[in-house]
Formats: sequence, structure tokens, C-alpha cells
Amino acid sequence: MATLDLSADVVSLTRQLVDIFSVSHHEQEIADAVEAALVALPHLEVTRRGHTVVARTDLGRTERVVIAGHLDTVPLNDNLPARLEDGVLHGLGSCDMKGGDAVMLKLAADVTSPNRDLTFVFYEAEEVDSVHNGLRKLTESDPGLLEADFAILMEPSNASVEAGCQGTMRVDVRTTGERSHSARSWKGVNAIHLAAPVLARLNDYVAREPEIDGLAYHEGLNATGIRGGVAGNVIPDECVVEVNFRFAPDRSEADAEAYVRDYFDGFDVTVTDMAAGAMPGLDRPAAQAFVEAVGGEVNPKFGWTDVAQFTRLGVPAVNFGPGDPMFAHKQDEHVPTEHVERCERILKEWLA
Amino acid sequence: MATLDLSADVVSLTRQLVDIFSVSHHEQEIADAVEAALVALPHLEVTRRGHTVVARTDLGRTERVVIAGHLDTVPLNDNLPARLEDGVLHGLGSCDMKGGDAVMLKLAADVTSPNRDLTFVFYEAEEVDSVHNGLRKLTESDPGLLEADFAILMEPSNASVEAGCQGTMRVDVRTTGERSHSARSWKGVNAIHLAAPVLARLNDYVAREPEIDGLAYHEGLNATGIRGGVAGNVIPDECVVEVNFRFAPDRSEADAEAYVRDYFDGFDVTVTDMAAGAMPGLDRPAAQAFVEAVGGEVNPKFGWTDVAQFTRLGVPAVNFGPGDPMFAHKQDEHVPTEHVERCERILKEWLA
Repeated sequence: MATLDLSADVVSLTRQLVDIFSVSHHEQEIADAVEAALVALPHLEVTRRGHTVVARTDLGRTERVVIAGHLDTVPLNDNLPARLEDGVLHGLGSCDMKGGDAVMLKLAADVTSPNRDLTFVFYEAEEVDSVHNGLRKLTESDPGLLEADFAILMEPSNASVEAGCQGTMRVDVRTTGERSHSARSWKGVNAIHLAAPVLARLNDYVAREPEIDGLAYHEGLNATGIRGGVAGNVIPDECVVEVNFRFAPDRSEADAEAYVRDYFDGFDVTVTDMAAGAMPGLDRPAAQAFVEAVGGEVNPKFGWTDVAQFTRLGVPAVNFGPGDPMFAHKQDEHVPTEHVERCERILKEWLA
Repeated sequence: MATLDLSADVVSLTRQLVDIFSVSHHEQEIADAVEAALVALPHLEVTRRGHTVVARTDLGRTERVVIAGHLDTVPLNDNLPARLEDGVLHGLGSCDMKGGDAVMLKLAADVTSPNRDLTFVFYEAEEVDSVHNGLRKLTESDPGLLEADFAILMEPSNASVEAGCQGTMRVDVRTTGERSHSARSWKGVNAIHLAAPVLARLNDYVAREPEIDGLAYHEGLNATGIRGGVAGNVIPDECVVEVNFRFAPDRSEADAEAYVRDYFDGFDVTVTDMAAGAMPGLDRPAAQAFVEAVGGEVNPKFGWTDVAQFTRLGVPAVNFGPGDPMFAHKQDEHVPTEHVERCERILKEWLA
């Protein structure tokens, strides 16, 4: 079993976390290690649900802050183990988001008497269908554990504040044909060929880029998967294009669905996943106070993040974590050590 | 061990064969039964190679004819045992091609002094990768056993002559992009979107329908599979369209490959499978004589069959077997008893 040394500096700790393989649905080892490290800290009360670990102070402070990070990564892409080079740590999950997890573990170990009560949430299965998401499950099974005045999600955001988040929905666009032997293909109807206009429409897509609370969002419509085929000598009777729509937070779920259905008008469209975005929420006092502590700069968040889960619970939340999100999910995923150190320093100052 | 009663009528014998399970790679029992039945016939010399059984007359006739049929079937699909209903025998392998095998066994048993020397080939593993094909193996291990002036393959062809066969090749057409997070899709290149023109070209395809020896062939270019996608939130960096090209026998393998490469010019094309077609060969005297005996009608064979193996050996060959090939490989595979009886009658007359 892997163990974590919380006395190490935050960069070494990031490296330790990266080197524990934790592709989604394989978080047992990393969750065990995080739980064991937190249980050893007497000022924290630890709760485990599945492979999600929650640790809380209970100091009777007037304000409580949730700090959350997911433990899973996207699939391995020949990018383990971690490699430190010229002040940059490379490796699967270094950016998304084990740098942030390391910052949380350092806060948990070192800030034993924070000025605000703290709730740390290390959770499973953020990179897969939201039905598996550990934070989402917690909002349903243990909402009391997430009660707070403000939440910080350690999603990569260049060690600055990224407010709100875009929504995401997934649909299957399905074409249906008729099987036949491929030696007499004219007796059947090829469902893969029928999908040509679906791909053509995706190529024609022009993104909307609305401005909200002074932040410029950017939508996106993309095939993330395609499948079809029965056997090498059979004309296939079904083809499915999996499409992901990323939509700005001024669009509701219903509006997003209507847009996509209209875009693929004439095709069979099934919604398979939906997560609403979150408005920036920069009008809330707790958010304003944190933004001020960080230095005032705020950017929009393009990716869907679990800030939306907190929005649903009525807790104002922002993204603030090390790493450039542009490198999340890339083969050469990496995080500047300066980002990790900066996030640790700012949060320690804010909580001192 | 199963035994075969060659004194039964040809329909009963078909039924006996269907009821011996012989999915590809499980031909031992049926080959044992066929071998035992043939060894009991004093006018035949029997040779066995694996689960392929060859039986030959050696009467010094001026002409020799090979009659061949495979013993294996596609996978079981809840379609055993055989069932006879209203003049139609239903069951796995009834059409493809145990009706033909039964005709061969009746000829072997009853035509003890044929006007042409006969070579019967009952072979294994036709329905799987050609590397396992019993007839192909025989062309390499014992080509002398296959020397002949003419060959008849008992592949289902509606009890009429289907000459030649089309070739088949498979290629992967691959597009390559660049991964990125789907929330910032504009940072990546979507390989599935890049496949749009591949599908568009398939839709634009116009089949060539050449006339060869008076027969109208019909080519086909079809996607039989498509795959792409890394995860639901990743812009995919690869998409593969599996394409099957069925080509008329006037095209060589090299020509077929050049055609497909040119058709997908600009895309990455990899050939994964190739089997040449077979020219009808109706200009050869032995073929003409047989066609005349059958009554003169000849159709083209669209599907690839083992007549191509004989073409490679320089032996003119045709398909002539009971059953409609449209029902081969189908759950409700069946053969009209009239077809089986007709094939037996015609061949007996021709060989008398």
C-alpha cells in the first residue's frame, strides 16, 4: 500500500500523489493513502464514503470553508511516473489535479488552527459520467458534511481565481440502417454512411462567446466518440456519434438541450449526461473577500467543474488551483512548481 | 461417435450432417464421420489432412473433376437441431453448406463408375480467417491432390451455376488529430470531425458494374466499422474507418489497392486483408460443358468463395450448390429440399 509523507514540501507531495496510479474507477489505493495520512492528524475528523475522504476541523469559527479536489485522473497516456524538470513537474494528473490535492494535504497537516473552520474533500470519479462523481454523491448522501459559507475547488486555474463554469451535456446521435452481407451491400442501408452529415454539421459549428459578469465564455460542440460495425463482412445497421456540448453558464439545461436537438434536427438524439454550469457569482461577499485576498484578478472557467455542485447547494464557490487547464488531459500534462507553491502560500496566509 | 448412413436419401443425409455440430475449429466429429463413410467405399482412395478429407476415384478417365465443400459452419445461433417443414430444411449449416456436402456424399456412394475421374474434398475452417482454411492448406501441402480439369464448389447458389467470384479487401482509413480537453476544444484537433470527408466520399461512391463473360458483376465500397474516442471529455486524436471493398474479378489485387488508395487520396490507408477474386472462366471447355449440362443459365457470384483457390491453381471452377446465399449466416438459415435434390440429379446425370 502506498503511503504519503505530509512533512515533505508541497512539490514532493504532488510527485508522490502523481506516482499513485488513480485513473477513474481505480481510486482505492490513493484514497487509502490520503485517508491514512489524514487520520493521523488529531485536529481533523475523518469520514470516508466509497473512495471519497472528508476531513473537518471543528473549532467553532464563525465561518466555514470547503476546500475540495478530486483524486482521479483521465486514462494513462504513457505519462507516468512523474518527472521534475526545470521547475515543472510532468506526469498524469500533475495538473488535473494532484498539485491542488497536495496543497490541500499541506494545509491539512500544517494549518492546525485556521481562522475559519475547514472541510477538506478528496473525492473520486470526477473525470467520468457525473453519476459516479464522489462530490455529487456526497451532496446526496451527506449534504451536512458540505455545509459552508464558501468553497474553493482546487481545479487547475493557473493559481488564480476562475469564476463560474460552463455546463456540459452529452448526447448520442444515432443513425439506423439495415444489415446485409457486404458482398451484396446494395441490399442493405449503411448506417455509418448515414452519419456523414452529422460529422459535416460538427465541422460547420461556429462557437458562441458570450460575456457574463465581465468574463468572456466560449462554447464548444464536439464528437468525443464514434462507434459502428457488426463484422467485417456485414453492412452495419447502427452508428452512434457521441457529442459533447460545452455551454456558457447563461444557458439553462433545457436551453442547451433544445439547442443541440435543433442543431441535429432530423437525427435521433438521446441525452446521456447533463451538468448545468455555474454563474460566476462574483456579487457574493465571501467570493469578493477571497478574490481580494488573492489579488483581484478573475478569469472565466471554460471547463465544467464541481463549483456547479456547490452552486446547487447555495454555497458560493470559485476555482483556484495550480496548473494551466490547457494542459489537463494532454499527454504532456504538467504543473509549474511555482503554481503549487503560490497556491499553498496564498491559502496559508488567508487562513492564518 | 456420429455415423452417416449414405443409403439414406439426400435430404435425410443433409439432416444427418446438420445435426452434427461443426462450428469452425470444431470439425473433428463430422470429419471422422465423413471419413468413416468414405473409407467403406471400395472405389475411393481416402486421404485425411487435419479435419479435411479427400476421396478420389482412379479410373484412368481423360478428365478429372474436383467437387468440394466445407464442413464447418458459422457460430450456433439457437438454430439446431435441424427441422424439416413444408419442403424446407432449417438449421445451422443447412444452406452453407451441408446440403452441398450431402450431394457430394450421395455422388461418392452411388456413382461408382463416373465418366470423369472424381476428387471429393470435404474441408475444414472456411468460415474463419483464411489462414485456417482447409482447402487453402491443401493447395500448399498436397497440390497434386487437387489437380483437375474443372472444379465445382458446392457453395449455395440456388442450385444454379454462379461463375467466378468477386475479390475482397479491407482497409483502415485513419485520421489523426490532437487531443485536448473538450471544454477547450479549440486547443485540439478533432480526428472524428476530420473523418467527415471519408464518410462523404463513401456516400458519393458509384459502384462499377462491369460485364465479364456476359455476367454483370457489381462492386461495393462500404464502411463496415468506425471507431474513435478517448473519453467523454477529450477531443479524440484518432478515428479509424474500416472499409471493405468488394471488387469484380477483372481487377487484380494491386489494381484494387491502387483504386482504394486513390479513392481516399489524402488519407492514411492501411490494407488489413486481401483476397483476389476469380474470373468466371466460362471460355474454358470443361466449364462450358458443365454449364450446358445444367441448362445454360449462369449468374455472377458476388461474394468471395474458394473458387478463387482453384483459379490460383489454374483450375477453372464454378459455384453450384443448393440454398439461397442470402440466408447463409442468418439465424433462420435453411435450404429448400428441391434444391438439394436438383443438384444431386444434375450432377448424377452429368457424371453418368
